[in-house]
Amino acid sequence: MPQMPEDVRTAIERLMVDYCYNVDALDDMERFLSIFTEDAITDMTAIGLPLMNNREELRQFFEGVFETMSHHFHVISNFRPESWDGTVGTMQAYVMGMGHAKDGNSVAVQVRYRMECIETADGWKCRHYTITPMMPLPGSLNEIHGDT
Amino acid sequence: MPQMPEDVRTAIERLMVDYCYNVDALDDMERFLSIFTEDAITDMTAIGLPLMNNREELRQFFEGVFETMSHHFHVISNFRPESWDGTVGTMQAYVMGMGHAKDGNSVAVQVRYRMECIETADGWKCRHYTITPMMPLPGSLNEIHGDT
Amino acid sequence: MPQMPEDVRTAIERLMVDYCYNVDALDDMERFLSIFTEDAITDMTAIGLPLMNNREELRQFFEGVFETMSHHFHVISNFRPESWDGTVGTMQAYVMGMGHAKDGNSVAVQVRYRMECIETADGWKCRHYTITPMMPLPGSLNEIHGDT
Repeated sequence: MPQMPEDVRTAIERLMVDYCYNVDALDDMERFLSIFTEDAITDMTAIGLPLMNNREELRQFFEGVFETMSHHFHVISNFRPESWDGTVGTMQAYVMGMGHAKDGNSVAVQVRYRMECIETADGWKCRHYTITPMMPLPGSLNEIHGDT
Repeated sequence: MPQMPEDVRTAIERLMVDYCYNVDALDDMERFLSIFTEDAITDMTAIGLPLMNNREELRQFFEGVFETMSHHFHVISNFRPESWDGTVGTMQAYVMGMGHAKDGNSVAVQVRYRMECIETADGWKCRHYTITPMMPLPGSLNEIHGDT
Repeated sequence: MPQMPEDVRTAIERLMVDYCYNVDALDDMERFLSIFTEDAITDMTAIGLPLMNNREELRQFFEGVFETMSHHFHVISNFRPESWDGTVGTMQAYVMGMGHAKDGNSVAVQVRYRMECIETADGWKCRHYTITPMMPLPGSLNEIHGDT
C-alpha cells in the first residue's frame, strides 16, 4: 500500500482517542456522533452486539448504553495503519474497555478497533467502524449491552 | 482555545510518561519530584487521597508510598490536550494504575490524570496535577495509601 | 546521552507495536521473526522463561507458544528512549500481556519491554530484547509457557 501520510495517521489516531473520551463521558450524544459520517456503518457483531447501518442506528444503540451505564473506561493503544488509498485511511488500535452498569453489573473486554476514515469539510470522520474481540468475551457483555 | 503546538504537546506527554516511570521506580525521590514546580498543587481528593499544596507535601506523601509498596505499574494512554493559553499547557490522559504493597495488599485503579504544565529554565514542569476516578474505586486504595 | 532522533524513536516505537500485533496473531512465524536480527538475543529469564541466543531459538520457543495459545493480547504503552549512540537505539515500553491457552488456562502479566535496535538494509530490527516483570508474576505463566 502507499504509505499513510503522517498527518493523516495523526488525525485518525486523535479521532480514535476522541471516540474513547466521548464514549466514556456517557453524555453529549451529539458530540459522540460528530466523529461519524451520516452513513457510517458500525459493526459490533463479532462481540455479539448489533450491526448499525447509519448514524441514526448508532444513536439509538448508544442512547441505551448511556442510559444503562454509570461508568465507562476505554484505554486505547497499539495504533497501526492498515491502508491508505489517497482518500480513505484505515487504522487499527487495541482497546481495553471497562464498564459498570447502574444495576451493579460490570464488564471488561479486550478488543481491536478498526476505523475507516475520510476527511470532510468538518474534519476527519469515521465511515466504517468494526470491533473484533481479542480475548474470550465475558458473559456479562451481552447482559449489559445486548438486546435480551 | 488556540491549538496547542505540537512541540508543547509532545513535551507534556513525555513528562507524563516520565511521571509513570518515576512513580513506578519506587525510589529516587528527587527524580520523582523534579517534574513538579516547587509550588505544584496535587489534588488526589477525588480518589480519597490528600490534597497536597506544594512539592514538600507531595514528598511527604510519596515517602510513605515508596516505603509501603513493593510494586507499582502505571500504564498511561489516551493523551489529549485540554487547553493552551500561550504559556500554560494542560493535558489529560488515562491511567491504569496497579500496586502491590509489602504487606501483601493489592490495588488497581482506572483514572484520568490532568496536568497543567509550564516551561521553566529547567524544562517543562507540572504545576497542578489532578486525579479523577473513571471506574468505581476499590476499597483497598484507602487501606494502602490512605491515612487511616 | 545524545538525544535519540525523532525518526529513530518513531521507527522503534512502531517496531514494538508490530511485535505486539505479530505475537497476538499467533500465526505467521516468518513475519513474527522478521523484526529480529538473525543473532538477536531474547532474555525472558526475569519472568521465568528462557534465554534465547538467536532467532532460531526464538522460533522454537514461539512455535510452542503459537501452538498452545488460542488468544493473545499485548497492550503496549509508556514508550521511552533509554539510549542512542548514533547507531544503536534502545527503547523501553510497558506491556500488559494477556493470554488464553487452548487447554482453558489464562494468564495476565504486567511487564516492561526493552528493545535494542539497529537499522539494517531491511529496516529497523531488534537485536536484544528483554522482558522485566513490574508486578508479581502469576503462577499460571510457567504453566502455560514454561518447560515444566
